[in-house]
Amino acid sequence: MSIRSVIMIGAGNAGFHLGLRLYSTGVNVLQVFSRTEEKALRLAGQTASRWTTKLRDIAPNADCYIIAVHDDDIGQVSETLYSNPPLRDKLFVHTSGSTPSSVFKPYFHRYGVFYPLQTLSISRPADFTDIPICVFAPDREDEDDLFQLGQTISRKVSRIDDEQRAVLHVAAVFVNNFANHLFHIGHQILEKEGLPFDLLRPLIRETAMKVQEDDPSKMQTGPAVRGDRATIERHLGYLEKFPEWKELYEMVTKSISV
Amino acid sequence: MSIRSVIMIGAGNAGFHLGLRLYSTGVNVLQVFSRTEEKALRLAGQTASRWTTKLRDIAPNADCYIIAVHDDDIGQVSETLYSNPPLRDKLFVHTSGSTPSSVFKPYFHRYGVFYPLQTLSISRPADFTDIPICVFAPDREDEDDLFQLGQTISRKVSRIDDEQRAVLHVAAVFVNNFANHLFHIGHQILEKEGLPFDLLRPLIRETAMKVQEDDPSKMQTGPAVRGDRATIERHLGYLEKFPEWKELYEMVTKSISV
Repeated sequence: MSIRSVIMIGAGNAGFHLGLRLYSTGVNVLQVFSRTEEKALRLAGQTASRWTTKLRDIAPNADCYIIAVHDDDIGQVSETLYSNPPLRDKLFVHTSGSTPSSVFKPYFHRYGVFYPLQTLSISRPADFTDIPICVFAPDREDEDDLFQLGQTISRKVSRIDDEQRAVLHVAAVFVNNFANHLFHIGHQILEKEGLPFDLLRPLIRETAMKVQEDDPSKMQTGPAVRGDRATIERHLGYLEKFPEWKELYEMVTKSISV
Repeated sequence: MSIRSVIMIGAGNAGFHLGLRLYSTGVNVLQVFSRTEEKALRLAGQTASRWTTKLRDIAPNADCYIIAVHDDDIGQVSETLYSNPPLRDKLFVHTSGSTPSSVFKPYFHRYGVFYPLQTLSISRPADFTDIPICVFAPDREDEDDLFQLGQTISRKVSRIDDEQRAVLHVAAVFVNNFANHLFHIGHQILEKEGLPFDLLRPLIRETAMKVQEDDPSKMQTGPAVRGDRATIERHLGYLEKFPEWKELYEMVTKSISV
């Protein structure tokens, strides 16, 4: 069998975009749950589906239940859903990069993961054709179904087990959360000096575009990789006013140099 | 007067792209110098200009001399050019983010900076309309001319003095060199686990695109900003195999959390 209908449990950034994309590729979104009525309504309104703010009202007629709530809530939500017997044989997946699929084990015998590896915000459109979808299920048939579901929304679907996904998530923190923090530091430095962040934006974009085809190691430039101590010392001198970032500068410079 | 002709001294990444762009917007590139014949030829061939590998053969008939050599060589190149008397009253600029304009002071009385704030590689086309050009000259008329020259190749020209440019360069190291190093770490982690870097590339691109309109601080997500200790501890556990990156993970996490 394949997955023709889903119920979205959670309608935040990931749930919203995923629900919308599934609907737009012809998957039946039967129902949307969110504790926040406004969020439930927003997604339901765009996917021609019913909505609820109560977990006990989740309907038992979907092929797959996509749990897109905060990582910490996946267990609690599962427990509540389990208390509704007609749901117990259904396929449950979460969308989290950092939660093992075993979170479902105490409750369900059909479960898995459907993880879109992207940073999604309600305020920005998401181009799913290009977003890697990482699927996993202990049962091969379920995983095949999730793989197929992934292929309806993206050209890049991979089978990624819990351990691999945990590694991916660490790497994602470096290239996304940590890189964004560096952009923030750049922004703060410029702001302090009354310079507009627009001066750095094209550089940030190009830095990201350069690694779309090449390896980052080949793209490394700057004083650290050149071993340009004079420039490094000048920079450290300037960073006296930001001691915490000075320390970071030193550590990253050391890490690049080795 | 305005700048209608230039001589490119240096034909590496910055010199090549700058020379090409100036030529394509109608500026006369009279001559190209590079110590490497191949580089001199490559740029001269695309800008209908003469070329030389000898500094003493630089012609005295250009409105502006653009020195795009390694930062450390700007002083030495200037000294050599100064030994040629007909050049002494000419306008000299360098293209370096980290070198004060005063590097020219011992030699020339007309000098300045023409700094394209972008990471340029021969192998990638450069879209100059979007690249911030930072100009400076102690003499107002020279600076006006450089500003105009900037406007012929970009929509984003700013007057940026030595001190501001030094700050910009520190910030650029964070958002470019250091961010690229994070991409490298992500790449290495995935490689170690036999996972393709393509899984992270869309995330890297989107992370950069999100700050094109918004402030990075608004875009911060992940375990550090959520204070999600359980995930952070899991990540640190995994990073035991990369002690240096574990230390970096801890420092950046701390920096995000404060």
